[in-house]
Amino acid sequence: MPDQLTLHEDPRSGNCYKIKLTAALLGLPLATKQYDILRGETRTPEFINSINPHGRIPVLQIADASGSRFLPESNAACWYIAEGSMLIPEERFARAEMLRWMFFEQYSHEPNIATMRFWLQFVGEANLSDQQKSQIMAKRVAGAEALRLLDEHLVKNHWMVGDTVSLADIVLYPYTHVAEAGGFALRDHGAICAWIKRVEALPGFVAMM
Amino acid sequence: MPDQLTLHEDPRSGNCYKIKLTAALLGLPLATKQYDILRGETRTPEFINSINPHGRIPVLQIADASGSRFLPESNAACWYIAEGSMLIPEERFARAEMLRWMFFEQYSHEPNIATMRFWLQFVGEANLSDQQKSQIMAKRVAGAEALRLLDEHLVKNHWMVGDTVSLADIVLYPYTHVAEAGGFALRDHGAICAWIKRVEALPGFVAMM
Repeated sequence: MPDQLTLHEDPRSGNCYKIKLTAALLGLPLATKQYDILRGETRTPEFINSINPHGRIPVLQIADASGSRFLPESNAACWYIAEGSMLIPEERFARAEMLRWMFFEQYSHEPNIATMRFWLQFVGEANLSDQQKSQIMAKRVAGAEALRLLDEHLVKNHWMVGDTVSLADIVLYPYTHVAEAGGFALRDHGAICAWIKRVEALPGFVAMM
Repeated sequence: MPDQLTLHEDPRSGNCYKIKLTAALLGLPLATKQYDILRGETRTPEFINSINPHGRIPVLQIADASGSRFLPESNAACWYIAEGSMLIPEERFARAEMLRWMFFEQYSHEPNIATMRFWLQFVGEANLSDQQKSQIMAKRVAGAEALRLLDEHLVKNHWMVGDTVSLADIVLYPYTHVAEAGGFALRDHGAICAWIKRVEALPGFVAMM
């Protein structure tokens, strides 16, 4: 019996969507269980005790005959699903370069671009705390810089690593293609816009919401 | 000829140190070139054009007969160096779990614990901008939560993944063992303190500064 995969997710989250996109591109079945993070549904004692002590989604649940294991962190879940597939390059430097962009995504891209989208589109600017409001300017600057680096790379390359799609593209696509919801302009970045179209034309592609 | 590895680094950076620690534990030679980030030495046009367009260290330079390639992002550089070694588990779930903790390190641990150390020990609290000062409370809370999760995991496990050291331990050790420089208390976390001693007892271990 192959492993049965279940994604614990909030469908509004790009970090959850990237896991669904990985499974879809590989044609793998993936069950889902929904939580509303705005209502604190991942902070309940039950969730913390049985799904993720960190109280966060996404979590990939991997069930086999001996029981279930739980894997938090979106990019680790994408790796698990894609292990052994064409989405992870075999060559040593290319594989490390893919991870480079995946760490860039979590360190320099997501905390700025995804957070601004979450604050503006889902929380609402009027509902932000003073502490959050004080971070907006820094996140605008750092998010714009992340998009500039991405565009600069994509001017010279069709894909983030080598000459074909990899997990680096899959994990960068979700929050990039909706960056305008966080107040970032994509129209100045022609290479990003062209790459977005290439990702969306992949066989098996599924849209975010 | 094997690849010749050079680390572009600031020796005060735990992100740079983790790469040196990986190489040391594997007995691999690693040349270094130093930069002072406080003096902007990684933001020069020369650095940006030839080493890393993001203007950041660490960067691992990999030279062979055909030229040099440059790999930013500390955890990707650790992966490159450790590929094929005992520091990366072979088993599929263990490998993904190792990556889970490496992404946790960059997303939930480093931005709080390393940043607080950098601000308090190297920049100085009096020299922080208002924007930085306004983030201190949130970083204290999030950093303490990251240490709590780490401790909770290490109460039940000797190593982060499986029953032996992996890159997950190597990348979490640097900023954890100096967390007190950022104002975080380690003495409440007995399991972290015991794990720190286990890491420091590894054959080939080298200290940070």
